[in-house]
Amino acid sequence: MTAGMLTVVGLGPGDAAHRTRAAEEAVRDAQIVLGYEAYLTACADLTGPHQCVLPSRIGAEQQRAEYAVDAAAGGARVALVSSGDAGIYGMASSALAVAAALPPGRRPAVRVVPGITAAVAAGALLGAPLARDFACLTLSDVLAPWEAVEARLRAVAAADLVLALYNPRSRGRSWQLGKARDVLAEYRPGDTPVGLVTDAARDGELVELTTLATMDPASAGMHTVVVVGAAGTSRLGDWLVTARSLGTQR
Amino acid sequence: MTAGMLTVVGLGPGDAAHRTRAAEEAVRDAQIVLGYEAYLTACADLTGPHQCVLPSRIGAEQQRAEYAVDAAAGGARVALVSSGDAGIYGMASSALAVAAALPPGRRPAVRVVPGITAAVAAGALLGAPLARDFACLTLSDVLAPWEAVEARLRAVAAADLVLALYNPRSRGRSWQLGKARDVLAEYRPGDTPVGLVTDAARDGELVELTTLATMDPASAGMHTVVVVGAAGTSRLGDWLVTARSLGTQR
Repeated sequence: MTAGMLTVVGLGPGDAAHRTRAAEEAVRDAQIVLGYEAYLTACADLTGPHQCVLPSRIGAEQQRAEYAVDAAAGGARVALVSSGDAGIYGMASSALAVAAALPPGRRPAVRVVPGITAAVAAGALLGAPLARDFACLTLSDVLAPWEAVEARLRAVAAADLVLALYNPRSRGRSWQLGKARDVLAEYRPGDTPVGLVTDAARDGELVELTTLATMDPASAGMHTVVVVGAAGTSRLGDWLVTARSLGTQR
Repeated sequence: MTAGMLTVVGLGPGDAAHRTRAAEEAVRDAQIVLGYEAYLTACADLTGPHQCVLPSRIGAEQQRAEYAVDAAAGGARVALVSSGDAGIYGMASSALAVAAALPPGRRPAVRVVPGITAAVAAGALLGAPLARDFACLTLSDVLAPWEAVEARLRAVAAADLVLALYNPRSRGRSWQLGKARDVLAEYRPGDTPVGLVTDAARDGELVELTTLATMDPASAGMHTVVVVGAAGTSRLGDWLVTARSLGTQR
């Protein structure tokens, strides 16, 4: 049997303009394309009737990873697609863990094709808030106790890093962003610039500029990234810009 | 005079396969293409004799930003190109600051086209080390006192975030990575997985897996990103993988 291959593909923020050629080739070349339905729609222009395109429920990550690895172990060329970058809060971690647990003789080749992650897409729409040192944190407490999430938030806030907050709010998680804002306000002034980017490079794209004191958590949703400035971040007209130099011009 | 436009473009890690279509279109559509010579070479397949392609010295960032903004203010379509993402340790910050300082009537339109930044490219080659919460820090003390760099390093190390270290070493900066390793070793065990990725997606691409205790700073160079794992990061075969869950399975 021909050796199969699993490619874990990041499709970028949504619009085809922000996909890489490598991501497009990996999807076109696959015999089986797997992913949550919205991600398959985002690459529907790359797939055709000669391929097996299999939507899966969101949340069913472990099963999706197992199916993808099994299919590749059986000899198929499989593309497992995510939005953004598949390695950052994406499917690559589960898929690699499943593959690594197989005996060497059954383990398929796996590669990860990088994509434009949400923080980078949001940063470009806001200007250059990530220009020097930043952290990506998720506010989701689905896979972690809130105390652990909050401890990281406090450490990064105290270190004066720019923050990109993923998963700030969902239908089931309504209070986390308000709490995060209150925690950050213990460390940073109320006029700290904040940008909320929702549906970057998708229909309904929305960029909102606000401050830590005036941010309304209700304006964030499932597809929002919240960028919180540091001491070096200024609002310049409609842009958020962080200075490249540090500790000299505060 | 027609309104000009400055597009600050991230070309990704090097290979054309990791460029986005938006980045390619911005370069093709420009009348003037500006950038450090190596970046112009990386997009030479997109430019032609009808365009004005202007190399500039590395380090001459402020002048490059001023020239790009002035040319766009004068009515030209200008592409200012960087490797990786232009917003992350790139040219977007300086260009936006220069543009924002102009009087509104002379200020050109500016947009930033995102790219695959080095941490994301390195993460994909290593597996999925950035799967949950990470910080990007530069070890360069050219634009900051080392004390400020070290303070951030300590805060992130204590917070158990995965780290992507940019600019770990250059001809003029030889001791910073060794010092950073010693600082991190105060907070993390010696067997913490570390990945060094040099020239990602370029000729001479090199991926080295090591640990905090055994890492040799001399194996890093100007084009290396160093990824340092956290408590949730494991070495699985030839992959570095960080668990998506936190605080439950340590």
